[in-house]
Amino acid sequence: MKLLHNSNKAVYERACHVLTGGVSRNTIFRKPHPFYVATSKGSYITDIEGVERIDFANNMASLIHGHSHPAITEAVIDQIKRGTAFTMGTEAEVRFAELMIERSGTFERMRFVNSGTEAVMTMLKTSRVYTKKPKIAKAEGAYHGTYDYAEISQTSNPDNWGSIDKPNTNRVVDGTPQGVLDDVVVYPFNDIERTLNILDEHADDIACVLIDPVPHRIGLFPATEEFIQAIYTWTRKHNALMVFDEVVTYRVNYGGKQDSFSVKPDLTAMGKMIGGGFPIGALAGRSDIMEVLDPRGRILRHPHSGTFSANPVSTTAGRVAMELFDKEAVLTLNALTKTAVDQIEEAMAIADVPLSVTGAGSMFRIHLQPDKPKSYREAYHTKEKKELINELLDYMFLEENIIMINTGACMFATSLTQKEVDRLSEGLLKGFQLIKPKLDRLQINTAEGYF
Amino acid sequence: MKLLHNSNKAVYERACHVLTGGVSRNTIFRKPHPFYVATSKGSYITDIEGVERIDFANNMASLIHGHSHPAITEAVIDQIKRGTAFTMGTEAEVRFAELMIERSGTFERMRFVNSGTEAVMTMLKTSRVYTKKPKIAKAEGAYHGTYDYAEISQTSNPDNWGSIDKPNTNRVVDGTPQGVLDDVVVYPFNDIERTLNILDEHADDIACVLIDPVPHRIGLFPATEEFIQAIYTWTRKHNALMVFDEVVTYRVNYGGKQDSFSVKPDLTAMGKMIGGGFPIGALAGRSDIMEVLDPRGRILRHPHSGTFSANPVSTTAGRVAMELFDKEAVLTLNALTKTAVDQIEEAMAIADVPLSVTGAGSMFRIHLQPDKPKSYREAYHTKEKKELINELLDYMFLEENIIMINTGACMFATSLTQKEVDRLSEGLLKGFQLIKPKLDRLQINTAEGYF
Repeated sequence: MKLLHNSNKAVYERACHVLTGGVSRNTIFRKPHPFYVATSKGSYITDIEGVERIDFANNMASLIHGHSHPAITEAVIDQIKRGTAFTMGTEAEVRFAELMIERSGTFERMRFVNSGTEAVMTMLKTSRVYTKKPKIAKAEGAYHGTYDYAEISQTSNPDNWGSIDKPNTNRVVDGTPQGVLDDVVVYPFNDIERTLNILDEHADDIACVLIDPVPHRIGLFPATEEFIQAIYTWTRKHNALMVFDEVVTYRVNYGGKQDSFSVKPDLTAMGKMIGGGFPIGALAGRSDIMEVLDPRGRILRHPHSGTFSANPVSTTAGRVAMELFDKEAVLTLNALTKTAVDQIEEAMAIADVPLSVTGAGSMFRIHLQPDKPKSYREAYHTKEKKELINELLDYMFLEENIIMINTGACMFATSLTQKEVDRLSEGLLKGFQLIKPKLDRLQINTAEGYF
Repeated sequence: MKLLHNSNKAVYERACHVLTGGVSRNTIFRKPHPFYVATSKGSYITDIEGVERIDFANNMASLIHGHSHPAITEAVIDQIKRGTAFTMGTEAEVRFAELMIERSGTFERMRFVNSGTEAVMTMLKTSRVYTKKPKIAKAEGAYHGTYDYAEISQTSNPDNWGSIDKPNTNRVVDGTPQGVLDDVVVYPFNDIERTLNILDEHADDIACVLIDPVPHRIGLFPATEEFIQAIYTWTRKHNALMVFDEVVTYRVNYGGKQDSFSVKPDLTAMGKMIGGGFPIGALAGRSDIMEVLDPRGRILRHPHSGTFSANPVSTTAGRVAMELFDKEAVLTLNALTKTAVDQIEEAMAIADVPLSVTGAGSMFRIHLQPDKPKSYREAYHTKEKKELINELLDYMFLEENIIMINTGACMFATSLTQKEVDRLSEGLLKGFQLIKPKLDRLQINTAEGYF
């Protein structure tokens, strides 16, 4: 039996002998070593050395009520005592699907899977079955999980991204087959004219246009109403589907970011917070499209299962979390987030730093540039910017005991209050003052931009 | 608030309004409707109408200790009270990886993911990065989850499977791009000469040969030592990897089915039972290959993360389950399974039915043919066979209150005892007698076989 209570460094050293890079997910990696959680409650996490931090990352936006919410914990423990997985159904999946469909004006039928990656994969496969076409259109820089077709050009950089009129299809993982690149069409987010020109070139082959309506890695700013309308109109004209990745953005409104737009996606992938802290993914949308998954059909067009899909633990936790995240809770959380952004913008003014903030609903991201970015290429982190944001986030984590996401983003939870928001904005003020000298040099060096 | 205690039929009717086909995974679908679990304990499941059944399916082989094992339940509840997911590490992932590597002579480094599908996908992508080659070789009929490249030709049938000398690459999901078909090579399992001929044709392009060492859907019989040796030798010669899908078969020995062979896979995908009843997948293997996933490298060759990957609930449940499934437990469970197979073979003799049983370790499958099948094509279920196996399984489920897997397979758990094994063999005896008249007619009609 190994010692359980140990230093973060010592656990990492053990981890390096058994996990590649010492981590099982790159997200948690940080230099000189990751930190390990002992316990958590609400918005507070205590590591194994006893240091308590305020959590504004919420496991990459997946914990809408923070940690160990008593109602979720109680419901899940009750379910676990009755079993966690069966070769039979449970009412838990039915009740949760009923709730999600009630929340939405768009969802007619659902399917649960185990992760956002699986949800997007199932959505893209479903789009191909329905349209009988092979190609997927996705935005340069957008993250949609690790399915090959969904990840192309997510990490494009100035050396390989090519002309904005026709962004290159770049591998994220070495060795991705050429066939994948040939079946992906990359468009510049929110750029209607260029996007339509690109889509037109592949009109006969595009199964769906995949959209994250507030894409975090692009810059965490929303799709415009005009852009969504343009894609909607184009897809109606060309026997293609408009499909949303709302794995992160479902939190923005009661029925997802899609509530904001006058036209609605044909299919939606979800994940993260709808699992109430447990692994989940979901696909929802028009019943005539979802029908391709129906096992009762004469021919199985899209046989779909999954050992842990719709397991009663994840669906129970998810249902309770979503019941708690009712219309009022959404509005309250969004208002608190707005207050935080206002305070952070004030801190920027006080520190006299050339920064900006973008976001939507209960999410925001700080950018190391004076004007809010409007594209992936504008928001792109050069090596210098990346180092500087890391310096800011290290300061916040190590000195202020505040956890943010490694892009400089925060994903709020209902467990946060004004007290934690004050700590955040005060901590950031000091962080801004700390990086100001380097930031000023950076602005001079990169004033010409990329264009 | 809807009534929770309801009839199975009534819940299914509600489900049909919200879930495609009324189910979230096709596995649980059955006519006239699925059944819904109220509670479970060990090897017994009680549905919402109060009917108790003995579980020999164990959520498609994922529950090695049956339901609600007290030690797993206790450890998981303790973890859930301390939190379920973080943007930080936990010791749970490190301890579990240490245990899995200790069990194995083959594993040097690991990564956890959320499902077997994700584990196989990550393994195939890793193979491509390491070898710099695009193609995947997989066995006709083998199930490896729902990643496109892994599922090709899983459901091939006499109308489309083509010559055994070069099995066709067939879509499982309509609309799978031609590029996927072009990058998959299909081989006939355990057929050394034909397989090597096929592999030779694509030698320059094959990244890995994917093998399930006891493939359930092919017929649940083990790979031969000679076949594994031949693949191993071929892959050494041609800069390719031999990779195992042990999502189901890890249970066969203490360190997986691979313990049985004189040569070992380069990479192994796992899932199901190693999650202790919670969603999990894992990739393990040679450290020089796994290194392509290392976030500390100068270039990220295979950036890999996942919101719920290595979450402390699944890794804690998995660790406790695997600690309990020690060398002695493996042997005891395999011996009980052997007893069950002996008793079932006796029942077949008493009922005078032309059936056979295949399997390995704690798994077996009943075949509606007198000789044990040696290939996917021999074990293939025609429409008539499928109807008859369904009749047998419906009898077992509805009249004998015994749950089996829909292929006619059982996946044992340590919660089973001689008492349940007796119930199984006695129930099957009556089931065999019931289907005997139809079975005798079937044998006459299909005597000529497919070749």
